[in-house]
Amino acid sequence: MKIVTIIGLGLIGGSAARDLRREGFASSIIGVEQNPYHASTALELGLVDEVLPLEEALGNSDVVVVAIPVNAIAALLTPVLDLLPAQATLIDFGSTKAILCEQVRNHPRRGQYVAAHPIAGTENSGPTAALEHLYLGKTNIVCEREASSEAALTTAMGLFGALGLQTVFMDAETHDKHLAYISHLSHVSSFVLSMTVLDVEKAEKDIFGLAGSGFASTVRLAKSSPAMWAPIFEQNSAFLGQAIEEYITILKRFQQHLQNGETGKLYEMMEHANRIRPVLEGKSKAPAS
Amino acid sequence: MKIVTIIGLGLIGGSAARDLRREGFASSIIGVEQNPYHASTALELGLVDEVLPLEEALGNSDVVVVAIPVNAIAALLTPVLDLLPAQATLIDFGSTKAILCEQVRNHPRRGQYVAAHPIAGTENSGPTAALEHLYLGKTNIVCEREASSEAALTTAMGLFGALGLQTVFMDAETHDKHLAYISHLSHVSSFVLSMTVLDVEKAEKDIFGLAGSGFASTVRLAKSSPAMWAPIFEQNSAFLGQAIEEYITILKRFQQHLQNGETGKLYEMMEHANRIRPVLEGKSKAPAS
Repeated sequence: MKIVTIIGLGLIGGSAARDLRREGFASSIIGVEQNPYHASTALELGLVDEVLPLEEALGNSDVVVVAIPVNAIAALLTPVLDLLPAQATLIDFGSTKAILCEQVRNHPRRGQYVAAHPIAGTENSGPTAALEHLYLGKTNIVCEREASSEAALTTAMGLFGALGLQTVFMDAETHDKHLAYISHLSHVSSFVLSMTVLDVEKAEKDIFGLAGSGFASTVRLAKSSPAMWAPIFEQNSAFLGQAIEEYITILKRFQQHLQNGETGKLYEMMEHANRIRPVLEGKSKAPAS
Repeated sequence: MKIVTIIGLGLIGGSAARDLRREGFASSIIGVEQNPYHASTALELGLVDEVLPLEEALGNSDVVVVAIPVNAIAALLTPVLDLLPAQATLIDFGSTKAILCEQVRNHPRRGQYVAAHPIAGTENSGPTAALEHLYLGKTNIVCEREASSEAALTTAMGLFGALGLQTVFMDAETHDKHLAYISHLSHVSSFVLSMTVLDVEKAEKDIFGLAGSGFASTVRLAKSSPAMWAPIFEQNSAFLGQAIEEYITILKRFQQHLQNGETGKLYEMMEHANRIRPVLEGKSKAPAS
């Protein structure tokens, strides 16, 4: 059993805390949390045993999990590695990987760090949003495996196993590119749908009374936290920008066919889009993002 | 109790059949269905008592419900009114209303017709997709109420009540404009998201293994039937075209901020988009579309 420090006691860190304790991976869990309200809530909920200042927490830890927005990870990664005990393992749970891996590429303690991304979450945030089994059966991506020491990797794989994650390995650029399409673009399309409909509602009152479950499903991700997503978009702007560009190109083609009355072409485009059905159904136990 | 004819035995017509029978609104249900496979499936499932040719079915009916794609409704509306018995009521369940109302505006039997749109459905289709209680608690929009006779409206309201629908009244143009934003645009954004990700997957294999529940939710409507949706988009092309235009404008603003590294502006846009949360939560019993 290990002493685990979790930096960031929100949905991601809080959910990890619940399962690491229940599964007996952690003998005790120390929280590091800037927001005093989140800190006291996490203590009340029993997510962590104590909340300590960063430096004090690190000194006592076998494993440190960083579960904060990716801009905050970028700011903390080097100072945390600097302070990390020689036998401890550092794991981050950030949704981008290239900038983080780049930042510590030449750090003398790089081997103690495992760059991870468990693809799990909900549109809610904060310690009260923490869920048991959030990670169970979900996909976890570890980047630059070869830069982590065998000892750090073994510890990290034990932690991922305790959470029920299925780990795959990938280089950081490939991770960021794939996630731009399969996750970040979905969030952008949903945020923009919300803004479009909120805008028109100013002029056309009460249209939300006409909204159905289809709208609710498509716009769900627009409830997601800007504090989490703005830094992800910033760090992945090159790949995400490319994904949005392609999305706009297809949208304009759709719009052109619509305005030309080319209903057969619209039909063909939708038939093509329908090919997502077997993909989604083949993944009925799909990991959440 | 009434003899009900349902034209179109798919998700929409089949679901209505189940509830109209169970609630005792219909003494018997006649189906009209071009697709012989759907016809025999509907008989096997007990959705209808018999399947008859259109003219024969109409001659025996008290109420006729049209639940087929909106282009097929447009083609059938005048001939069905021509053949309708003098005491019978005709109701369509189409997702567009302006073109249909316009088409029969001067028909001598216009009073026997009630233009309706129950906002309910799933992304599945055909008689096997028919569900009990699909309409329960959902919103139903009746357009041009004043053009329907009191007798027809009374019969129709009885049918809507048996399905558990809550009916509101609206002019047909307003209906089509509001639905463009609250329903049709969601479908377009989802179809286009699917196409974008399917396109990139050709070059980048196996990215769907990384998809989570967020992607599944946003792309769900891309599974919808092109045979149903292509005619809806065609009939609502003016309002939908305007909605897509506004969506593209906001998407480009997002893209511009992303490329300029204006993360604060992205944050503000997402904070604005977050205002959809109370709207959706205020509608936790929202009608499905």
